[in-house]
Amino acid sequence: MAARYKGIFANPWMMIQRPRGTRDFPPEEAYRRRAVREKMIDVMERWGYREVATPTFEHLELFTLKSGEGVIEEIYSFKDKGGRDIALRPELTAPVMRMYVSELHSSPKPLRLYYFANCFRYERPQKGRFREFWQLGCELIGGRRPDSEAEVIAMADEVLRAVGIRGDIHIGYLGLIRSMLKKVPEAHRQSIMRLIDKKERDALRELLQSIGAEDLGIIELISLKGKDALERAEELSAALSSIEIPGENASAAQSVAAPGASGREGARASARAGRSPESEMDLSEFREMLELLDAYDVEATIDFEIVRGLEYYTGTVFEIYASGLGAQNQICGGGSYELASLFGGSETFSTGFGLGFDRIMEVVGEVDRQKPPVVLAFTPDVKIDAIRIAKRLRNIVPVVMDVMGRSLSAQLKSASAINAEHVIIIGRRELDSGKLVLRDMVKGSQEELSIEEIEEQLRIAFEQTTPVRR
Amino acid sequence: MAARYKGIFANPWMMIQRPRGTRDFPPEEAYRRRAVREKMIDVMERWGYREVATPTFEHLELFTLKSGEGVIEEIYSFKDKGGRDIALRPELTAPVMRMYVSELHSSPKPLRLYYFANCFRYERPQKGRFREFWQLGCELIGGRRPDSEAEVIAMADEVLRAVGIRGDIHIGYLGLIRSMLKKVPEAHRQSIMRLIDKKERDALRELLQSIGAEDLGIIELISLKGKDALERAEELSAALSSIEIPGENASAAQSVAAPGASGREGARASARAGRSPESEMDLSEFREMLELLDAYDVEATIDFEIVRGLEYYTGTVFEIYASGLGAQNQICGGGSYELASLFGGSETFSTGFGLGFDRIMEVVGEVDRQKPPVVLAFTPDVKIDAIRIAKRLRNIVPVVMDVMGRSLSAQLKSASAINAEHVIIIGRRELDSGKLVLRDMVKGSQEELSIEEIEEQLRIAFEQTTPVRR
Repeated sequence: MAARYKGIFANPWMMIQRPRGTRDFPPEEAYRRRAVREKMIDVMERWGYREVATPTFEHLELFTLKSGEGVIEEIYSFKDKGGRDIALRPELTAPVMRMYVSELHSSPKPLRLYYFANCFRYERPQKGRFREFWQLGCELIGGRRPDSEAEVIAMADEVLRAVGIRGDIHIGYLGLIRSMLKKVPEAHRQSIMRLIDKKERDALRELLQSIGAEDLGIIELISLKGKDALERAEELSAALSSIEIPGENASAAQSVAAPGASGREGARASARAGRSPESEMDLSEFREMLELLDAYDVEATIDFEIVRGLEYYTGTVFEIYASGLGAQNQICGGGSYELASLFGGSETFSTGFGLGFDRIMEVVGEVDRQKPPVVLAFTPDVKIDAIRIAKRLRNIVPVVMDVMGRSLSAQLKSASAINAEHVIIIGRRELDSGKLVLRDMVKGSQEELSIEEIEEQLRIAFEQTTPVRR
Repeated sequence: MAARYKGIFANPWMMIQRPRGTRDFPPEEAYRRRAVREKMIDVMERWGYREVATPTFEHLELFTLKSGEGVIEEIYSFKDKGGRDIALRPELTAPVMRMYVSELHSSPKPLRLYYFANCFRYERPQKGRFREFWQLGCELIGGRRPDSEAEVIAMADEVLRAVGIRGDIHIGYLGLIRSMLKKVPEAHRQSIMRLIDKKERDALRELLQSIGAEDLGIIELISLKGKDALERAEELSAALSSIEIPGENASAAQSVAAPGASGREGARASARAGRSPESEMDLSEFREMLELLDAYDVEATIDFEIVRGLEYYTGTVFEIYASGLGAQNQICGGGSYELASLFGGSETFSTGFGLGFDRIMEVVGEVDRQKPPVVLAFTPDVKIDAIRIAKRLRNIVPVVMDVMGRSLSAQLKSASAINAEHVIIIGRRELDSGKLVLRDMVKGSQEELSIEEIEEQLRIAFEQTTPVRR
């Protein structure tokens, strides 16, 4: 035995474990994931969304252009053999919008697209955070703000319900916070947003004081949650125009647009009401969106602390949490954005979300296990006939037959080992009589039946299970 | 306009095209691929194969260990941020066997596994050869040689037939050629195999002459095709033991095993018949496999020139060609191999194949297009009611409704633009009367119906289409 162990340890196998932060999915787990995925995709298709796919790797610039250089550290990037900076995609919104601009911009609007795709990150792997992970997401391209946002949030809610998850939906709105930020020097805006996103209140308060911006109402705004939040936000918004921050900021307020702020939207709002484009009107669209969400029967909590990490969001942003995931309980994030013009297309309002599929797999309940195949057991002398019978039965149900040269009794043992529920037994006698044996392994009973009768019984047995279909 | 064009060309968009050799799949193409994929997967599930998945990237060694350093050039490999040599997987057999050894080796045998996965190569992109491409494949682990090989080849044939492709199956057998190669110096074996694989007859003949091995029968063997090939191969095999090649080879013949040659198989064969393990007995198993293929109703051409490029194959190898693909008409390749022991497991006989999904998509015929969703058109005053009706109808069919704030007539125009076949029209009058308008856009007719009647009609209309399901 010593020699044998030595052999194993000397084996090159030790080198070729899976790479760090990755997973294999053996049959049970692959089936479970597929069953959950299909249920979620089915909902998206019922809402008229259509699948798209993009390459697994992209030029690194696609992602830094959108999200800033700050994201490079977390991106799984490398130099290819031609010296190009390539990234394994960290998310799908930028690739889908790149595809939209180059290939779909002349399709009838709106475009409803969904994807199920693997994404990558390069960071220290930890529990529940893998270097390769899966996202299910959608982009609704070319709609009007309130209607698009309500549809996408309502669909996210239903996608989660389809797999038994009641998500806790938090909805924020960037319009007002960006109006506030226009009053502070541009250099500080990103830091402020980052501190809000990370919920670091003390640091935020300190920064605002240091630049004399504590009266803008930012701290109060992000503390607003729930029912009365919207009204108080409208008051803050109304008060905003009278607040001036000393120094270089006031004059810059009108000329420097907040990242992603849409000129068209702003102009439209001003024209409509003659009011400041950066406050009330935006909130009125937010209010309209919330009313539509009511019609969809979606319960959501207003939460102005939701600002998302990425700078390209423009209006409503939302996050959905699941209980039972500890600190990492966010399973969905999304919002409205304008990326088409950044990628060379004409300005197009879009809304989307990404669902963290791996986290969803952690919280979904039991999934029906895959029904084991029917085992066709045979005495070695009738193998040729068994092959022909298997061929016929495969039109109806999954069928396996021995390929190991085993005896009939070994085949029956093997059927038990894979938890087969139905075994068909054939030998010379059965073939001559035209009656095969159908054994019900669950009940422990068996019957002699014609092949037609067996087909009928199996058809019924397999229809009772819930197949994976859409 | 000049300024506008200038704006476009100055745009960073020019940098962020798709990477070389990759593709986007817009909705129509994504649907077409899914429809074909599901039909093929459905066959594999009917044969009792179960889906598995492995990471997109692996340690480079996993592939060089199996296929030799010669393959590195074509592999899409890179150094990750931690300096490790990583490869985007070029194929799935090695990853699946790695998974088998580390996670599935104690599962009941045989294991029937399939995968549908993207693979990568780094070579100059050319027509039909992409850097990211898709493979559908299977591995049957732990069976007996003839039964496993026949099952896997018969299944490949049926998978192709399921999407309307009659493949031209060519079957070779490495047992005999490896026996012949044992008589030449080890240093030349790989070159000989490569010249056979590339069908470079003249160069092969020259090499064999230069090492005095022209009498081994290699040229004749690989010229054998079709019906009488097997008998002539058996004669060549019988003659082989009397042929000796001068020089250092004869003595090495017994001690140096051909790559992947199975000691157990050889020993068993010798024990059974007292004959040389490297020839006749192997061919008798090949003959048995061909008889089983007959039972499966599979037509195949014996073709000893099929040797596959990779060194790990041990017995039967096969390739399937499709007409209409020019020189690149191979759509499937497979064979038997023994990799488990190389990866640290115990020796396990396995058989598998990989189907080139992208090439298959080039030769499949028409695929039914995805049925467009039902359009729920409404006058703006009843949007809230429209949302509720859409919610109800989505239990039955895909439904979209306007999110662009369009008038009813603009909504109807948009329904035509997406080729909708059914439009439901609601306004205040329809809601009050309880009769909605169902317009059949194909027939150009319309009816006033209750929501229950509409549900029934739509259910029937959508059941008539072939949904993508398994």
